This record gives sequence, structure tokens and C-alpha cells, in this order.
Amino acid sequence: MRIALGIEYDGGAYCGFETQTNGPTVQATLEDAISAVAGNRIQTICAGRTDARVHACGQVVHFDCSVERSSRSWVFGSNSNLPRDINVLWARAVDSGFHARFSATRRHYRYLLLNRPIRSALLDGRTAWECRPLDALAMQKAADLLCGEHDFSAYRSSACQAPNPVRTVHRLDVERRENMIRIDVEANAFLHHMVRNIVGVLMAVGLGKQDPEWASQVLEGRDRAKGAVTAPACGLYLMAVRYPDQFDLPRVSVPGGLW
Amino acid sequence: MRIALGIEYDGGAYCGFETQTNGPTVQATLEDAISAVAGNRIQTICAGRTDARVHACGQVVHFDCSVERSSRSWVFGSNSNLPRDINVLWARAVDSGFHARFSATRRHYRYLLLNRPIRSALLDGRTAWECRPLDALAMQKAADLLCGEHDFSAYRSSACQAPNPVRTVHRLDVERRENMIRIDVEANAFLHHMVRNIVGVLMAVGLGKQDPEWASQVLEGRDRAKGAVTAPACGLYLMAVRYPDQFDLPRVSVPGGLW
Repeated sequence: MRIALGIEYDGGAYCGFETQTNGPTVQATLEDAISAVAGNRIQTICAGRTDARVHACGQVVHFDCSVERSSRSWVFGSNSNLPRDINVLWARAVDSGFHARFSATRRHYRYLLLNRPIRSALLDGRTAWECRPLDALAMQKAADLLCGEHDFSAYRSSACQAPNPVRTVHRLDVERRENMIRIDVEANAFLHHMVRNIVGVLMAVGLGKQDPEWASQVLEGRDRAKGAVTAPACGLYLMAVRYPDQFDLPRVSVPGGLW
Repeated sequence: MRIALGIEYDGGAYCGFETQTNGPTVQATLEDAISAVAGNRIQTICAGRTDARVHACGQVVHFDCSVERSSRSWVFGSNSNLPRDINVLWARAVDSGFHARFSATRRHYRYLLLNRPIRSALLDGRTAWECRPLDALAMQKAADLLCGEHDFSAYRSSACQAPNPVRTVHRLDVERRENMIRIDVEANAFLHHMVRNIVGVLMAVGLGKQDPEWASQVLEGRDRAKGAVTAPACGLYLMAVRYPDQFDLPRVSVPGGLW
């Protein structure tokens, strides 16, 4: 039997989603909790392997198991075994053709950027912080140039192992509300560090170091070394993963405060 | 010379604002940082002595010192000595007649309440959480009955030492946005636990355990034992303190995400 779960986490204390030996991961912590409910060892596959300190309120995982539990048991049982910085939002039995990663048709990430002279104790670890004024309109102009299907080689980490660097960005919106800048990006899929490298380029434009057209020039150069610095992980949230309607997965509204 | 400072903090790691021997406090941590800038021991007085785990983005303190420093030095010097969960927002030299507590004419607190069946990893420690549906309109009806000048004996902690239990509530607004309920309360001053006891009564009304009129009945009974439970500290924020215009203190816009 295949089960899909919706997952929320504060990534601050974790070395990323995927299990590794460097330190605690969301995946290992989650699998311990689910395994306790299942009564045997569970292995999960996720929609998006978020980096260290990246957050999520719309991560999706699936796993196979031989025991039967109600959706409610998977949710509340797992949550009672999870630390306070990870929680299961929903559970649903899915067709064996469902795959959290390969069935996903679209991912939505949000990047939050506090833009004021003084840091914020309340947003520490939850947003990136830029003390110099950012021009959100210039950032949007640059963002517009990255929409559509492109070879994003210049926007991926040198460690990225994806065989194909072409991705389709469906939406890249920059919006300012007082001292906060929100960047929403939706694509069919993302390369390693792609969102943070896009944000790095948008910040260089927002600071007036580069013209908006530079975003295109970086893209066309296909050379990561010609881009900007990678924006900090703590501002990044995996908001939602979209699947074909046939899988009928729940949508969870974003908790307030993640504007 | 008297200096006023605006302070923001995540109260999660502290036993409240005021220095005590039970554990770390915001005041002791802040005074260590300011003292390092001043070069001698500084003692502060605050506008509102927040409880353990209560947050602030608009706390105000003042202190006297014999050394001269620029506003910029007080802000950036203190911040470089402060942990990431406390920061100074602004500094201003003030008239010796200014007193952070006694000159204040109005305080604004905000209470954030996540209202959904499942807890939130991202809002843990930052909002209270109620899994049963709350009726925000009924809560607003109850809130309306508490506005104005009243004897708030029934809404203060039994440990409250204020000689006079009469306070004037200028505003008490309950607003829902999707799964978040925001309660804003402004008063000339507050008794110990007054906001959290008001929220406790509003929650009992929101859950349908009591009619909105119960808020008045509790008020008129003047008996703390007849009220509701005290709402959790982690949902409470000291947003702003207002002073007479003559002191010309800066206003800082709330960081986004504290909707």
C-alpha cells in the first residue's frame, strides 16, 4: 500500500531533507516517527530535496507499507512522535502509480527577504536580511526575463547532477510589502540551488549593481561563475507541490505569517 | 544623559523581560550588551515587563549614562553584542523627564492564534494553537463588551501587585485571516496577565462554551476564579508603546510576517 503525506518543517535545525551522515535531517527524523506508527521500518521519497536550513509548508513524501492505518493515525501518530519543528499535515492512500518526485508537475517556492537597516530577532532564521534598499520593481523586470523554458545552467550549483539543465519557470513574482520582499517562483522542477541563485541575481539588480537585463545575460552565458552569490537558505520555503488531479491530494492553506 | 531604545525580541528562550535569578532574561542580556558599549554598568527601565516566552517588536527602555555615544553606536554596538533573538531597533537621546514606563500613555499588544486541526512547525512558539474551530465574530462581540474604562480585577493574575485594577481599553479587535486569528488590544496600561486572561475568555466564547455576554459577567464579578484559563504566552507580542509627541520617539514598522 502506498501512502502520501504532506509535511511542514522549520529547517533551521536540519542538514536538509535528505538523510546523510553529517547531522540530523528531516527525512531521518520523519522516518523514525512514521516507522513507530507502522511498527516496521519505513523509507520515504520526497518531492523536493530541500537544502540545509530551508523550510517547507508543502513538502510531499510517499512511502510503501504492508500495514493498514487510517489517515488520522498516520497524521496524529506521526506528529506525536515528531519534534515540534516537523509535522505531518495530511495523509492519503494513493495509487501505486503515484510517486512524490516523478508524478509532480509543478513546484512552488517562496523566498522572504527582510529589507530594512536593522536585523530582526523575530524573523531570524526565517527570512534573509538585506540592510541596503532594494528596488523591487527592477527585480521584477529581471524576474520577467527568466520566465519560460530556458537552459538554467548558469543558475545551478556546480554540484548539480541533473542530466538536463532545461527548466520551465511558470511564474516569478517579486512583491514588496513595507519592509518585506516576497519572491514566488513556480516551475515544473528546479535544479540544485536554482531558486537561491535566481534570488542572488535579483538582489544584485535590486541593489543597483546590475541592470535588469543582466538576468538574461547570465542565463545566456550558461556559466555559473558569471552569476551572483547564492542567496541564504533561511529565506526559502517549499510552499506547494502540484500533482495531476487524478491523485486527488489535499491542498493545505498556508499558515498565516508566511506572507 | 538619558537614552531611550526600541527593542525587538523573540521571548522563547527567556524567563521574561525583567531580571531575575530563575534563568536568562531579556533585560540582563540587553544590559550586558549596552554596558559593553557604554564601558560601564547600565541599568534599564522598560515600558512593559513581558512574561516568559512573550515576544516584542515595540518594547521601549530607557537608561542613564555619563558617556556620550551616537545613536548609531548604541544601536549597532549593542546589536553586535546581542544574541540573535534580541535586537535594538533605534536609539534616541531624550529629556530627563522621559520615563519608559511612566511616560507611556498607551500600549498595544497583539495575540496570534493559529486555528486549524494540525499544529504548525513553522509557527511553533510564535503563535498559540487551537485545533477546534473558533467563531471570530462571537469573539468580537465579547471583545466589544470589554472596551472602555473598567475594573479588570477578574482579568488579572492573582499575583498582580498593581494598587488600582481600573484600566481603559481603547481598542480590542478580533480578526480572522484564513486559519489565523489576530487579536489587537490597546489600553492605557495593562494588569499582570490581563491580555492573556482576556484572550482566554474570548477563546471560551469562540469555542461556544460561553455566550459573548459572559465577558461582561466575568468583568462585573471581579473574581479571577470565575474567568477562563490564561491563554499561552507564546502567542503574545508587545507591538508598540505610545508616548506624548513632545518626546519625538521613532515609530518602527512591524516586520512582515507578524500579521
